[in-house]
Amino acid sequence: MIEEIIITHLKRIHVSNGDVLHGMKKTDDGYTDFGEIYFSNILKDKIKAWKIHKKMTLNLIVPSGSVRFNFIQVSSEGLIDNRMEITVSSDNYCRITVPPNIIFGFKGIGKDANIIANIADITHSDDEVKKIDINKFEFK
Amino acid sequence: MIEEIIITHLKRIHVSNGDVLHGMKKTDDGYTDFGEIYFSNILKDKIKAWKIHKKMTLNLIVPSGSVRFNFIQVSSEGLIDNRMEITVSSDNYCRITVPPNIIFGFKGIGKDANIIANIADITHSDDEVKKIDINKFEFK
Repeated sequence: MIEEIIITHLKRIHVSNGDVLHGMKKTDDGYTDFGEIYFSNILKDKIKAWKIHKKMTLNLIVPSGSVRFNFIQVSSEGLIDNRMEITVSSDNYCRITVPPNIIFGFKGIGKDANIIANIADITHSDDEVKKIDINKFEFK
Repeated sequence: MIEEIIITHLKRIHVSNGDVLHGMKKTDDGYTDFGEIYFSNILKDKIKAWKIHKKMTLNLIVPSGSVRFNFIQVSSEGLIDNRMEITVSSDNYCRITVPPNIIFGFKGIGKDANIIANIADITHSDDEVKKIDINKFEFK
């Protein structure tokens, strides 16, 4: 487990012509500020890894499909301190709040659209995000 | 056309394992404040209509599927002043900013997941939203 990551289970409201899914309210745990929202697609069996944000807090929601996330916390020497794996889908519908300086990657599990919404507290900037080679850590 | 509605075309960034879709930045046209984000699903050929928000400004994005929107502006006598119809999908990927006091409804067009993200400037409250019978206006 990684203590700083907050998992918040969210409500799916059943409506006959299509469900309504909670996302995030400004009063919710994990909300600090609104910078930007963007959506990442991930194809089935494909992995996007690894990235680390130096300043951004992520709030990750999967409104469609099923996505497996890996989070890694490393020491100042670059060794793994803690790991956390979680699969998010309609059966486990939640929001994952990820503070800065945690390495993350994700894999598409569902056969149809796997979508991740990220509600970020700052706008995207190439300066504060770092890519790490996919082979540096094992994706579990 | 309804003058007060803002259509903003958004970027889809092609990435080999799954595209990244812009949503909304705090510096974007149409952004005033962050209250809440939620997701509405709409099944193929099904319609959700009509609703009117008295205070909320909606920012509607379709990150998956294809959705047809109808917007109606009525006079104080309840007569139609202006109408606007738009179909949003990956081929016409945009954000629709809808100020308060515009009647709206939507229909699922895509065969897979049709998802609408609403980035709202206030949190949901039953007090400021009114439902209007589906037969009151024609869905086009």
